[in-house]
Amino acid sequence: MPPEVRGFRPWITHVQKPGTEALLKRAALAGDVISLAGALPAEALFPSEGLERALREVIDHGSAEALQYHWPEGYQPLREHIAAWMHDQGLPATPAQVLVTHGAQQGLQLLGRLLARRGEAIAVESPTYLAALQAFELLELTLAPVKRTAEGLDLAGLAQVLERGVRLVYLVPVGHNPTGAALTEDERQAVVALLDRHDAWLIDDQAYGALSYDGDARPLYGLHPRAVYLGSFSKVLAPGLRIGWIAGPEDLIRELTLVKQAADLQTASLNQMVLARWLEQETFASHAAHVNQQYRLKRDALVDALVRWLPAGVQWAPPTGGFSAWLELADGVDAEALLPHAIDAGVAFEPGRPFVVGGTRRNVVRLSFSALEVDAIGRGVERLAGVLGERVP
Amino acid sequence: MPPEVRGFRPWITHVQKPGTEALLKRAALAGDVISLAGALPAEALFPSEGLERALREVIDHGSAEALQYHWPEGYQPLREHIAAWMHDQGLPATPAQVLVTHGAQQGLQLLGRLLARRGEAIAVESPTYLAALQAFELLELTLAPVKRTAEGLDLAGLAQVLERGVRLVYLVPVGHNPTGAALTEDERQAVVALLDRHDAWLIDDQAYGALSYDGDARPLYGLHPRAVYLGSFSKVLAPGLRIGWIAGPEDLIRELTLVKQAADLQTASLNQMVLARWLEQETFASHAAHVNQQYRLKRDALVDALVRWLPAGVQWAPPTGGFSAWLELADGVDAEALLPHAIDAGVAFEPGRPFVVGGTRRNVVRLSFSALEVDAIGRGVERLAGVLGERVP
Repeated sequence: MPPEVRGFRPWITHVQKPGTEALLKRAALAGDVISLAGALPAEALFPSEGLERALREVIDHGSAEALQYHWPEGYQPLREHIAAWMHDQGLPATPAQVLVTHGAQQGLQLLGRLLARRGEAIAVESPTYLAALQAFELLELTLAPVKRTAEGLDLAGLAQVLERGVRLVYLVPVGHNPTGAALTEDERQAVVALLDRHDAWLIDDQAYGALSYDGDARPLYGLHPRAVYLGSFSKVLAPGLRIGWIAGPEDLIRELTLVKQAADLQTASLNQMVLARWLEQETFASHAAHVNQQYRLKRDALVDALVRWLPAGVQWAPPTGGFSAWLELADGVDAEALLPHAIDAGVAFEPGRPFVVGGTRRNVVRLSFSALEVDAIGRGVERLAGVLGERVP
Repeated sequence: MPPEVRGFRPWITHVQKPGTEALLKRAALAGDVISLAGALPAEALFPSEGLERALREVIDHGSAEALQYHWPEGYQPLREHIAAWMHDQGLPATPAQVLVTHGAQQGLQLLGRLLARRGEAIAVESPTYLAALQAFELLELTLAPVKRTAEGLDLAGLAQVLERGVRLVYLVPVGHNPTGAALTEDERQAVVALLDRHDAWLIDDQAYGALSYDGDARPLYGLHPRAVYLGSFSKVLAPGLRIGWIAGPEDLIRELTLVKQAADLQTASLNQMVLARWLEQETFASHAAHVNQQYRLKRDALVDALVRWLPAGVQWAPPTGGFSAWLELADGVDAEALLPHAIDAGVAFEPGRPFVVGGTRRNVVRLSFSALEVDAIGRGVERLAGVLGERVP
């Protein structure tokens, strides 16, 4: 009989219930359910042809280098391409300021590991990106929530947290997951002033940085030397390559390189070389602009449908970026209990509870529009509205 | 001016000195230096043609799946291939007992994270795999060294560590890095009895498991339910794909899946699909046998050269597996100080200090034969012996 595994489940607490997860997995595979749940990028928007060509060329030029070990900091031509792209965006970065990671998720691990010691707290928006909460819980950091509402970021709350001694802040300033909101210019300046006053570091999560639909929402990176940029190719290019990056002060990157080596030696050589070759041949900026336009159409479809179909009493704000929107149902409504009824009606959504620090709210829902065709978004929201009309008093 | 980065260097202490690292990097690139330092697999032994074919086929079958997100536990066909291969080796494993990792190095992180709490100790051989020490230091585990000498593993030392309350053990039972030694059958049985008596878990690092040159050195996995298998495709196939795996009890794998998700969501989809396709078409076992034979020839060349050239007073034992051998120079000799002279003489080696827990020994050296041609191994050892003859009293 196998020995009992020490029960670590309560250690990472911001997860969907196993029952909810099973429902969502089944719904994702069911042909007749429109899933507004998983915030996957649309496969039709992957630059498949270009990436396939880049792959073939890496192979044709001799695969030995792509199959061998490389240095932990990343493949040098890729670091150069990333730095050049950032520079074009008005973001100061040299190749030595760039560390390639196994997706932005690993960047959260490495930064959380280096910039906070175990038991220390990290300030996070609430709600925020679920897997960031998991990453920080894995590191045994304490989560210090700062409210993010339709009115924006609770700056007074952030100031209080920093006054209590917290020295690390995690924000998703553009295309915030799950709300789709962006920090305003005033909010960005206020955050910078707080970082400065309290000697704090910022993880500036720009996974959705290129997906800003109403004007140019900007990162905080570059406004303060302790604002560290977390980048990703998963949303705009393709997540299956698992390539992200961190950009920050050179001495921070040097330290992070040792952390990266201890964590997994290096990001896959093949993937880095393929991406570097793609960047050599294609313009990331124009591809990002194309993708941005397509996701904006989907966002518009979601907003139109929400305006048209949602019953009174549901609070929400139109997302300005990212892949999703956030609904607040009437007090007392339990989104997890609604989910099976919604799936019966042919639509799935993500119960919002684990996106909220402490998991204290049950009447919240994340709706993602990224993977769906425009038509399906409207029909999905119509079905959801039907369920809300029936089930919510 | 950028803010001062908190100095974390002392946190991970088992590293080569920056000066030594710079010397080794330069030596690796110098055409006239034979490097016995980096334990890289030989590129000529990568199954490049088969992997390139697998890559082309994954692309030709439509790359969307390879570019999209997958589940954290790993690509199911790959889990099935791994379980089948283990089964053929007489190692019990079902697909549900396999978690795919971003190289075996990440497996160390995930297992160390789940099976020990911060501040707890982990028993490790000394000397042992340098980057394992870094992984455990990153997790802020205390290192409890157990001596590994030419006489074998210090079983009494291991028993003492476990009696002090340590509940996690890390061993490289086959092709031990850096010594190239293997545990005997008696040692394996004794370790199993200790695990059992003390309710301890074992990380059974089998990165070199298929590289055993003198008979069939076996893993500990399968002898005890708390012996967890850590596998790698880096040595026998190709490290640039960054694919490793963990095999263990199903309930452990379930918990590890959440840790994996928090760490980096999943291992790259593309790489997993390519490897699964290669495994579908090629026999891993026969490829491993071929590679094993080639590395055995290199091992033989190293042993022949050491017997022929090494001056008296250098202690060493012939490696029975893996990629390297371990030399103990006379007391008082400083291998780091010798290195620049060796490079001047056209040979590089790895100073052994950071492979020893606590970094307390200066008269030790790791010699790796894996990446070199047979001829170069002999010439490299001859040059090294010349330096030792000149510089060591």
